Order: sequence, then structure tokens, then C-alpha cells
Amino acid sequence: MDRRSFNRRILLGGAAVATSLSVVPEAVSAAGPVKTAPAGGEVKRIKLYAEKLPDGQMGYGLEKGKASIPGPLIELNEGDTLHVEFENTMDVAVSLHVHGLDYEITSDGTKLNRSHVEPGGTRTYTWRTHAPGRRGDGTWRSGSAGYWHYHDHVVGTEHGTVGLQKGLFGPVIVRRKGDVLPDRTHTVVFNDMRINNKPPHSGPDFEATVGDRVEFVVITHGEFYHTFHMHGHRWADNRTGMLTGPEDPSQVIDNKITGPADSFGFQVIAGEGVGAGAWMYHCHVQSHSDMGMVGLFLVKKPDGTIPGYEPHEHGDGPAGGGHEH
Amino acid sequence: MDRRSFNRRILLGGAAVATSLSVVPEAVSAAGPVKTAPAGGEVKRIKLYAEKLPDGQMGYGLEKGKASIPGPLIELNEGDTLHVEFENTMDVAVSLHVHGLDYEITSDGTKLNRSHVEPGGTRTYTWRTHAPGRRGDGTWRSGSAGYWHYHDHVVGTEHGTVGLQKGLFGPVIVRRKGDVLPDRTHTVVFNDMRINNKPPHSGPDFEATVGDRVEFVVITHGEFYHTFHMHGHRWADNRTGMLTGPEDPSQVIDNKITGPADSFGFQVIAGEGVGAGAWMYHCHVQSHSDMGMVGLFLVKKPDGTIPGYEPHEHGDGPAGGGHEH
Amino acid sequence: MDRRSFNRRILLGGAAVATSLSVVPEAVSAAGPVKTAPAGGEVKRIKLYAEKLPDGQMGYGLEKGKASIPGPLIELNEGDTLHVEFENTMDVAVSLHVHGLDYEITSDGTKLNRSHVEPGGTRTYTWRTHAPGRRGDGTWRSGSAGYWHYHDHVVGTEHGTVGLQKGLFGPVIVRRKGDVLPDRTHTVVFNDMRINNKPPHSGPDFEATVGDRVEFVVITHGEFYHTFHMHGHRWADNRTGMLTGPEDPSQVIDNKITGPADSFGFQVIAGEGVGAGAWMYHCHVQSHSDMGMVGLFLVKKPDGTIPGYEPHEHGDGPAGGGHEH
Repeated sequence: MDRRSFNRRILLGGAAVATSLSVVPEAVSAAGPVKTAPAGGEVKRIKLYAEKLPDGQMGYGLEKGKASIPGPLIELNEGDTLHVEFENTMDVAVSLHVHGLDYEITSDGTKLNRSHVEPGGTRTYTWRTHAPGRRGDGTWRSGSAGYWHYHDHVVGTEHGTVGLQKGLFGPVIVRRKGDVLPDRTHTVVFNDMRINNKPPHSGPDFEATVGDRVEFVVITHGEFYHTFHMHGHRWADNRTGMLTGPEDPSQVIDNKITGPADSFGFQVIAGEGVGAGAWMYHCHVQSHSDMGMVGLFLVKKPDGTIPGYEPHEHGDGPAGGGHEH
Repeated sequence: MDRRSFNRRILLGGAAVATSLSVVPEAVSAAGPVKTAPAGGEVKRIKLYAEKLPDGQMGYGLEKGKASIPGPLIELNEGDTLHVEFENTMDVAVSLHVHGLDYEITSDGTKLNRSHVEPGGTRTYTWRTHAPGRRGDGTWRSGSAGYWHYHDHVVGTEHGTVGLQKGLFGPVIVRRKGDVLPDRTHTVVFNDMRINNKPPHSGPDFEATVGDRVEFVVITHGEFYHTFHMHGHRWADNRTGMLTGPEDPSQVIDNKITGPADSFGFQVIAGEGVGAGAWMYHCHVQSHSDMGMVGLFLVKKPDGTIPGYEPHEHGDGPAGGGHEH
Repeated sequence: MDRRSFNRRILLGGAAVATSLSVVPEAVSAAGPVKTAPAGGEVKRIKLYAEKLPDGQMGYGLEKGKASIPGPLIELNEGDTLHVEFENTMDVAVSLHVHGLDYEITSDGTKLNRSHVEPGGTRTYTWRTHAPGRRGDGTWRSGSAGYWHYHDHVVGTEHGTVGLQKGLFGPVIVRRKGDVLPDRTHTVVFNDMRINNKPPHSGPDFEATVGDRVEFVVITHGEFYHTFHMHGHRWADNRTGMLTGPEDPSQVIDNKITGPADSFGFQVIAGEGVGAGAWMYHCHVQSHSDMGMVGLFLVKKPDGTIPGYEPHEHGDGPAGGGHEH
């Protein structure tokens, strides 16, 4: 976005209302214009594998032998179509069911609709997305943009209860033209009493430097409700997690109740107004956090240090799994 | 709404923002203008009976011997007043407590306020509604429009716990002038581990044809939290379930956490962008869906067929209970 | 606000849309203009003590020997900075962790960051707030305004589970310039199965006169999810609990699911459209209300009477704890 289009964007926004950024210590925001999502409309193809992991868990991966929990982040722009060539390398039937996107019943990923995949089999699932628009009857049709997710619907029960326990889930982000792109995206899945199926009290931790634009996708699975809380950072309880402008009535929160298959996302500027630090994020249900549903958002100073933090205090250090833009 | 008023409506909306409906397979939307709710202001009267059902459950009905679970859908327009002549045909005290509407303390439906009804007794409950408006002090008063519900507050405990278990609840919709009217409304009540007090694994199922505008009212009662999920269809997490326009920041979702006495509603165009099919809706808490909190949204092609669906797979076929406009 | 600025405010609002206040019985709203929050920017200081209460519980207080459950209401305006000189008078380590506000890692209130206070010790926690504004990159930064809360993060476990059980929590409200000020603020904390740590079936009850503008801050702590319901009154599910105008798409509700560390707030005009009465508020999870998670919003007529209410019916009468403006 060049300077001219940036000014035009301000003009189209709510610029008539005068507000000012308050002065806070260590406030750091990138001075340059943000990167934004382009219009969609592409037809994309990926291969996706369902695999057993060495530890008995299960995962989705883009290459054989590379499955992860959560599965790979899939990003689309409204208008895109994605064909997923899905291969089941396991010895039990499995499927791919997606939330939020447009798919015909043959891509439902359920046994009810015979859209699962037997052991050794392959199936192409097609997901479509669309921009918002007016229908022929004058009403508004919402677009596909959102923080969504995909998961198995077959392993263990008709609702994939065992597949979900073992790790068959992953994030999908659909962006609208003009949506702000982050520097990095992290996925947090509250799956029963674990985060991303890791052992308790072992994160995952995520690293950033003060001023980075970091996106979190938060997904819940399993049996229990949770409350996702992050220290020192907040977000708006709306589609993007960011206010659309000064008229946006959305509540700003740092704690949100979620249940199985809920998903939401948001972006923060790491350390904005609060500086570097080892910022906890955790489930705020007291027994859940006490049992270890806790990770760290490790926000470093530009020199790489984190005030007051000694890495050995909290298990095995920062996790991978971040997705760079 | 004639062509001229339809154009005027577009003009008043957010028409300055250019958007376009994406092309999707089998996208079907009624070409004609939608029907909308009129201004309210009427005084209406109904009779309502609380009855024991043959199977030991309890229900509300508009005629003696016709009680149902959930009770009848009550629709009002903002400004309407409803007098409910309520008769208790049972051998235990019962009441009628409504959410969201305006009622004086004598219509509270609680024992605390002596607004319940003894066996064989009759009482008139009066519910009022109002449009949004400015107060004398300049602040905005919200209107009564919403997806609400009524229920017993007396049977078994001071909070009607047994009455709720046995089926004493029903939906209330209050519409604002200009709200879009659906072709059909269905009510889904997650009441402990059952849907509409039916046995597990027996729906209810709901039928539609691709392109129908179908409204769902979703109510929760009892002891547990749930997550309501629908396959292949989405809604906006706001008052109407529909975006008000391109500036509406509401999150679009297909899964929502709810707890006892929560209610929300939305409209979908059946099969929009996804076509015909046997689309599951279910609680996404894994043990709840596995135990049978599942129904089908059966979206037919115009020729009446549903691709890939054999009715005997899922119990006893489509349920009644729909409410036509 | 004088007459002229009041008219200007209407002009800046959504005044192009014609709406009208419906006529309801006993509708009473103050005719005068509302009081609104000023711009912030002040640096404030308070002393806060953590204390053991005579009954074995724990509380925060502004003076020694005056601790209460919940702790004192702290109100700020966006732009304010608050220095809390915090003294631990107890024999166990304790801390002060706040939600929603800006604080450096040294004010995190966790053992992880060594920002707790040993027995007999003192520490200054600094909380900052900011108005919304545009960042250097053109995106909107949300402001600090909200219904937030503070709590211990140390007693019993690393997450303060015992401190929370015993009463170490309290409300924080950050207001935006122009936010409507209430006549009175009440705090309701659903803490496991108790409200404000009181015994079951003992309120707290809150008193008002028809037409008062009453604010409620609702906070949840502990282990369980709840649904907060109030009889006869509603609010908007957004930042302030009040609609910003006729275009605000927020759902209006009288029942809301919450989990540990969630908080929200709203203002009602006592008895608006419904009149005086003993209006219950309660958790709508049936076993929770049956076990006594119930209080009364006692709305009196101007002559001080409450139709149909006899105080002895509900325990020990109205509680203190209200905060007057």
C-alpha cells in the first residue's frame, strides 16, 4: 500500500472523529504501512495426509512423514477455491471436515454422507469461499472471512471423538481483501486439558520482538469449556479481533469463554504499551491452569533480552509451529 | 415491497461500498424482494394451557390437549402488547416467565412474587414490547426485538427445574419493523442431553428446499453448557444472525457456546453456496453428540431428492414442528 | 452537558433515522441530561491492603481493617495512570494482577515474574490506560475502556486458586470520554457456587428507585461456568451494555454465559417499562440457582414501597456494597 492509498483509506474510515494515541512507555508500532490481504479468486491445490505419529497420536501434514499437531495452517482469501487431495495413510477410516467454508455434501467429511476415506484411500475435498455481497432479494450475504478450522469427523465415533483426542485438527484462516496481515501466526488448541496435545506444564511458548504484529488462532476441542486469557494484551470480540474504527461497539477483552469447536482469532502488537516480558497465556478455569494449561508469549526487547525471565523456569523453551508471513 | 421501495432501501444501506456476490455452484437465492416485519402496536390475546402429556412430560399449548415440546412459537412486532390467558390444567402449580420482554412484577411468573398459577387456576400474563428510541436524557434505549423464550419458574423448585426438565418452555420472537421474515421457523432446544425432549439419536430433523429462507431459534435449558454447530451453513453472531451490511464487525460463526436460558436465532438460505444434502446439526461437545444430540437439516433439490441420503439411516424421518410464514 | 451540547450530540449520532419511544406503563426516565465521563490523563495514587478477614476469608481494602469481598471498585478514565501502593498484611505471599489495563511485566502480579509480595511486604503496581487511536501503520488500536477486574495470582497455587476462593478479587471500570455515568454501581461476582462469597440464599440484594440509572459489573471466578440472568431488565452484549445507536447490531440479552475471569457490565434504568418490584437476578444453571445463587434487585416506587414484596421472604435484606456517584 503506497502513501496515497493509505491516505485514501484513512479518508474512507471514521476520520471525522478526533482521537489521539496516548503516550505509553515502550510503545512500539511499526511506522510503515501494513500489508493487507489481496482479493481472492484463485483455484489452489494442496495434498494433505492423515498419519499416525510415532507416539500413538495422529496428525495432518502436507508431506508424508511431516504430520503435526495442530495440522498445517491453511490460508485463503475470500473468493478462493481449494482442492485438498487427501490421503489416508492410517489403518482406520478418517475424514476432513471444515468449519465456515462452502463445501458440497460430498466434501462434508462424515460417514453419514459417505465422504470419509478408508485406510489407504484418497479423496479430494473441495472448499470454496466467497466475499460478502447482496443477494437477489436485497439482503446481505456474509462473506467467508474468519478464523476457522478443520478436523476429523470419523475416528472412534461418528463425530470423530477419538480422532480429535489424538490430534486430527488444524486452523484455517480466510481473509477479506484489505484485512491486515500479521508478521506471524500461532495456533493454540485447547483440546481437553492439553494445549496442542502437549504434556501439561510444557507450553507451547511463542517468541516475538516488541512491535511485531502477532496473530493468534484459538480453537477448542473435546469435552470441556475453557476461558482463554492472555496477560498484558487484549483484543476485540469481533470478526478480526481488531476494532474497525471508533464506532465499533465490540467489547475489548483479554479473557473469553469457549467450548468444543469454537474458534476465534486476533492480532496483537507484541508488548504494545507494556513492553517486553514473559507474558503468560492460560486457561483461566482454575483447575485447568493449575494442571498445566499454560504457555508463554515471550516478548523480547530488540536486543533479544526478556526482563526478569529465566528460560529454565518454564520447561523446555519456545516451541516451533509459528507460521511466518 | 415494490421495486421502487426496494431501490430506496439499497440507497439507505451501505451502497457506497462496492462488493459482489461470488459465483458458487448451485447458489440459489430467491430473486424476489423479501417480506419484512411491519411496525407493531397491536394488542393481541392468546390462550395458553399448561398440560401433562401422556408420557409424563409437560407442555404448553394454544388449545386443550394440544400441548407440544417446545411450546408454540409466539411472534410479536416491537410495540405489540400480548395478553396471555394462562390456564393450569395440571395438579401442580406452574407459571409462565418470559425473557426479554417488558412485564410488570405481577407477570413475573415466580412464587416470590406470587405470580404463579395453582392447579386448575387461571391468570393473565401481560407482555409488552417497544421499539428502540431515545430517552429523555439523550441515551439510547434498546428495543425488544430478539430471539427470546418463555418457561415455567415453579415446578419442582423455585426456579422451575422440574418443569424445564419435563418440557415447559417455548420460543418468542420479537421483530423490528423491516426485519426480514423467513419462509419457515424451527426451534431447537438443547435441554440437558436432549433436543426438544426427544429420545437421543432421533432428531428432530427439519426439511427445506434449496433456496428457502429458514430461521432457527436455538434455546438452551437445564444443567449443561453446549456448543450448537450446523454443517454447511453459517450465521452472524449478532441480534438477527444476519449482517447489517459491509461495516458490521460481527463474527460469522457456525458454532456457538451456550448455557441454560441463553437464546439466539438466525436465518439461512438453505443450501446456499453448498447445494442440497443431509446437513447435520449437533452439539459439538463430543460426548453430547456421541450420545445422540444430533439432528438433520434435510435440504432437498427442487425435484425433492437429497443427494447421498437414505432416510432409514437416521431414525424416524423429518419431524413436524415447523412454523410456516 | 447543557442544552446546546446535548443537541449537538444528537446531531452527531444517528439522528437521520426516525424512531420513537414507545409508551409503556410506569416508564420513568430522568428528564435531565446524563452525566458523562471526562477525558482522562491524570496520575492517581491509592493504597491497597490484602488482609485476612475474621471469618478466614481474604479481601482487598483501601484502609487497614476495611477489606471487603469483592474489593473496592476502582474507576479510571482512559488516559489515567494509577499507582497502587500495595501492602501485604497477611502471613502468606499475595499479589495484584489486573485484567485489561496496561502494565509492565514488573506489575504482572505473578511469581513467574517475581511481581508478588511476600508477607509484610509492600510493592507499587502501576496500571496505565489509553484512549483508542490510530497506530503509525494506519490500523486502529482499541482503548482501555471496559469492565475489568483485579485479583490475586499467587495464594495457594501459581494461579491464585486459593486466593480467589477466599475473596481476593475486585472490579475495575475504565471509562471513555463521553461514557454515560450511572447513579450507582453494583458488583456481582459469581465465585464457584457463591455470589460475592456470601452464603447461599442470602443475596446480595441491591436497592434502587424506579428511574435510577444503575450499573452492574459482573465477574466470574473459580471452576464453573454460569449464566447470569436478570428479571425484567436487559442489556446490549457490547462494550458498554448500551446500544451506540440504531445501527448497532449487538444482540440485546438478559442472560449471558460466562466462565472464570470473564467480566462484563451494563447500565439499566431501574424498572424502565416494567415498574417497581423485587426483580430476581440469578445464575440460570438450574442446580446453581436451586442451591442459592440468587439475589434481588429491589426496585422501589418513589414512595419507597415495592409491590408484592415482603422483605422477610428472602433472608436478611438489602446488602451494602453499592458505589454511589
